[in-house]
Amino acid sequence: MSATPVLERVDADLNAALERLMTFLRIPSISTDPAFKADVDAAADWLVDDLQSIGIPAEKRATPGHPMVTGQIGEDLDADVPHVLFYGHYDVQPVDPLELWNTPPFEPELQDTPNGQVIRGRGASDDKGQLMTFVEACRAWKSVHGSLPCRITFFFEGEEESGSPSLVPFLKEHADELKADLALVCDTSMVARGVPSISSQLRGMLKDEFTIIGPRIDLHSGHYGGPGLNPLRELSKIVASFYDEDTGKVAVDGFYDGVHEVPEDQLRQWQNCGFDEGEYLGSVGYSKPHGETGYSALEQQWARPTLEVNGLWGGYNGAGSKTVIPSEAHCKITCRLVGDMDPTALRSKIRKHVEARLNKDAKVVWDNDMEGSPASVMNLERPEFEKARGALSDEWNREAVFAGMGGSIPVVGYFKTVLGLDSMLVGFANEDDAIHSPNEKYDVQSFHKGIRSWVRILDALTK
Amino acid sequence: MSATPVLERVDADLNAALERLMTFLRIPSISTDPAFKADVDAAADWLVDDLQSIGIPAEKRATPGHPMVTGQIGEDLDADVPHVLFYGHYDVQPVDPLELWNTPPFEPELQDTPNGQVIRGRGASDDKGQLMTFVEACRAWKSVHGSLPCRITFFFEGEEESGSPSLVPFLKEHADELKADLALVCDTSMVARGVPSISSQLRGMLKDEFTIIGPRIDLHSGHYGGPGLNPLRELSKIVASFYDEDTGKVAVDGFYDGVHEVPEDQLRQWQNCGFDEGEYLGSVGYSKPHGETGYSALEQQWARPTLEVNGLWGGYNGAGSKTVIPSEAHCKITCRLVGDMDPTALRSKIRKHVEARLNKDAKVVWDNDMEGSPASVMNLERPEFEKARGALSDEWNREAVFAGMGGSIPVVGYFKTVLGLDSMLVGFANEDDAIHSPNEKYDVQSFHKGIRSWVRILDALTK
Repeated sequence: MSATPVLERVDADLNAALERLMTFLRIPSISTDPAFKADVDAAADWLVDDLQSIGIPAEKRATPGHPMVTGQIGEDLDADVPHVLFYGHYDVQPVDPLELWNTPPFEPELQDTPNGQVIRGRGASDDKGQLMTFVEACRAWKSVHGSLPCRITFFFEGEEESGSPSLVPFLKEHADELKADLALVCDTSMVARGVPSISSQLRGMLKDEFTIIGPRIDLHSGHYGGPGLNPLRELSKIVASFYDEDTGKVAVDGFYDGVHEVPEDQLRQWQNCGFDEGEYLGSVGYSKPHGETGYSALEQQWARPTLEVNGLWGGYNGAGSKTVIPSEAHCKITCRLVGDMDPTALRSKIRKHVEARLNKDAKVVWDNDMEGSPASVMNLERPEFEKARGALSDEWNREAVFAGMGGSIPVVGYFKTVLGLDSMLVGFANEDDAIHSPNEKYDVQSFHKGIRSWVRILDALTK
Repeated sequence: MSATPVLERVDADLNAALERLMTFLRIPSISTDPAFKADVDAAADWLVDDLQSIGIPAEKRATPGHPMVTGQIGEDLDADVPHVLFYGHYDVQPVDPLELWNTPPFEPELQDTPNGQVIRGRGASDDKGQLMTFVEACRAWKSVHGSLPCRITFFFEGEEESGSPSLVPFLKEHADELKADLALVCDTSMVARGVPSISSQLRGMLKDEFTIIGPRIDLHSGHYGGPGLNPLRELSKIVASFYDEDTGKVAVDGFYDGVHEVPEDQLRQWQNCGFDEGEYLGSVGYSKPHGETGYSALEQQWARPTLEVNGLWGGYNGAGSKTVIPSEAHCKITCRLVGDMDPTALRSKIRKHVEARLNKDAKVVWDNDMEGSPASVMNLERPEFEKARGALSDEWNREAVFAGMGGSIPVVGYFKTVLGLDSMLVGFANEDDAIHSPNEKYDVQSFHKGIRSWVRILDALTK
C-alpha cells in the first residue's frame, strides 16, 4: 500500500476534516465539572459514531466516571504487521475566566493570524484537534486502500483533565484487550514552530498541600498585633526558605538526589533543535530564565526538577482592608521530577523541611490525598522511533528532533507499569496554543501536517 | 443632685434596660452590606425614639451614607456645667462565617457562662451594648432628678464598621453644633476582667495593598516550571524580608523612626494593671509573645508598631491540584503605628523596601486608596481623667488604670483635628467578647456596672 494517494486524499479532504473537528469542538466536554456530564457523554458518542463511520467497530465503555471509547481494527492483517495503541482524550479543560475569551469557547471558528490560519476554541489543541489528526489519517488510509497498514487499538479517555480516576482500573481490567506493541500518544507540543518533535523524556510530578495553623481563631490585629504569631508570615518564611536565591536551586535537603546531568550529545542536539529561548521567555514577559543558574531555559524546563507554589492563600482578600490575623494559611505545591527522583522519598524531605522551620506555636496539617509519579524516559532504542523520525522529517522538510518535555503525562507511566507498553509521543501543538487558558487555538498547519505526519508514520512503521 | 438614688434606679431598672438592648440588637444594622441599608436606618430610628423617650430631642441626620443620630440636652443648665460629647456607633460587623454561630446572631439571648451571665448576639459588645451603658445612665439620671448633671451632646454614627466615609464631612459641616469640652467614647475594653480602664493611648494605622505581577498570563508549570518566575515565590520572599527573625523587629529601613520607649513609671503601672499575659496568649494557643524580643506582650500590643499581613493570595485554591504558575500574587498589609510615626513617610519606606527586592522581571502595583492615621496619646493632664478614674475605682472596687490600647479608633483623631476636642475613652468590653467574630457577647456585669460607671463619671465631672 502506497502512502502517496493517502496524502493526496488528506489534502483533498482537509475542509471536511476541519468541519468534523468543529462539530467535535462544539460539544462542551468539561470533565471536571459535573454540570457537563451529559456533554462529556455526548462527546464520547460523537467519537464512537465517527470511528464507526470509518469502519472501526468502536464502543463506548462505561466506567465509574466518564466513559472510555475503544475500538480495534486490523485483526485480519498479517501477524507480523505492527500493532499500535493510539491514546488521546476527548475531554477538555474548564473555560474560566470566560470574560477573557474573544470568541465563545464552544463556538469554534477559523481565524487568520500573523502565523497563519488557526482553529480557535476550547479543546482545539488539547486534545480534540490532536487526537483527530490520527483519526483523520486512519480515515484517509481506509478510504484509499480499504484497510489500514497497521493493526490499531484506539483508546480514548474522557477524564484526562480531571485526574484520570478510572484509567488505571480500566487498564488493569482490560489489559489483555489493550495489549499492543507500542503506544502512540498525541498530546504534546513541537519544540518550535515547524520543528517536528518526538518526546524523549517527561518530567514526573509530586503534589502536596499544607495548612499552617497559628492562633486557634482569627484574631483582631488591634488586640493581638505584636505578640500574635501570624501564619501568613510563617508561610512566607517557609516558602522563601524553599529556595536558594543565589543559585536558584531548591534548598530542600536531598532534593536533587537522583537527578542526572544531561549527556553532552543530547545537550548538543537540544541546543540545535530550533527552540528560541528569547522568544519563548519574551512572549510571557521574561527577560531571562529564572531557574537554576548555569542551565539554559530548555534544560531548566526539560531536565531539571522544580518545586513550584501553585496556590497560596489566607486571611482577607475582599475589597478594602480587614485587620485580621488569620488562624490559617494555605499552600499548594507541585514538584516536577527528573531522572531517578523518588516521589515518596521527596515528599518526606519536603515535609521535613517545612516542619523543621515551623514555629513551636504553629502547627502544619498535610493533605494526604496528593499523588506523585516518577519521571519517564522513552525507550529511544526501539526501531519505531527512528522510523517515525524519518517520516516526520520527510513531512516537515526539517529534521525531526528528540526533545525533552517539561510536563508530565501520567498515562505513559501507567501503560508501562500496567500493560508493559512503551510509548512514543508525537504532537503538533505549538507553545502559543494557550491550552488550559482562554482563546485556545490549534494551527491549521498543525492539523493538516499532523494528519499527513501520521499517514507517513503508519506507513513507516510497516517498513 | 446626688448619684446614690440614680445608682439604685439603675439596679432596679436593669431587666428593662436589658430588654431595650435586646430590641436594639435584633435590628441587623450591618453597615458594610448594602442589603442591610433599611436595617441600618431602622437602628437609627430606634435610637432616636429611645433618646426621645428619655426626653432628649434627638434627630436622625441624613448623610450620603448611613445617617447620624444627634441630640443635645442641658442647654438650660448653668454655663459652668461641663459639656461632654458622647460618641458611639449603632452599626455592626457582618456575621460571616454564620455557621460558626451557636445561636442566630440577631436573636440575642441571655446565657449563663463560667464567667457569669452574658448577652449573646452581634453588636452586644461592639458597640450597641457599650453605647447603651451611657444612654441608660442618662435615662436613670433623668428619671430620678428630671435632668442631667452635665450638658450632653449625643453623637452616634452608623458607618464605623465600614470606614466612616461620612464622618469627617459631617464633623466639618456641623462643627459649631458639635462643640463641647471633652468627647467621651465607649468602644474600648478593660485591660482585664473587672479592672476598670481608661485608654491612655491608641495605635495609629496604615493600610496598604500590592500585587506582584510575574508572567503576562497564567502559565502551565509543565511548560514554564523552571525558567518561569513565580510571583507567589517573589511575594513570599518579600514578605519574609519584612522581618528580622532574630529580633522579631520589622526589617524595613526607617520603620522605627518616631517610636519612643515607654517611660519607666508608665511601664510600672502597666505591669501592675492586672493584665494576665499567660491567660491572654494561652487563650488563643500561644505559649509566648511573638513580637519584638525584650518587650512584654502588653508593650508589644500597646506601645510597639507592627507590620501585619492580613491577606495573601494567588494561584489556585480549589480542590485538588492545578499546575499553574499564576500571573499575579496579592498582599494586604496593615501597620499599627505608635508615638510620632508618620503614616505617609512610612508608606514610602515600605514601598521602597518592596520595590528594592523585586525581581526585574516582575512588577508591583499598589492600591492607592488605602488610608493612614497616626497614633493618638490622650491628654491625661486634663482634670477629667483623674475624676473619671476616681469614679471608676469606686464603682469597681479596684483602682482604675490608664491603659494603652493596641487598636486604632480614628474618630479620636478627627475629633481633635476637626473639632479641637480631646477624647476620654472608657469601655467595659472584655477581651473574650469576640467582637467582629462569631458568638459575640457582652457580660451582663459590663453592661450593669458600665451604666453605673457612667452615672458616677457624670457626677464626678461636675465636682
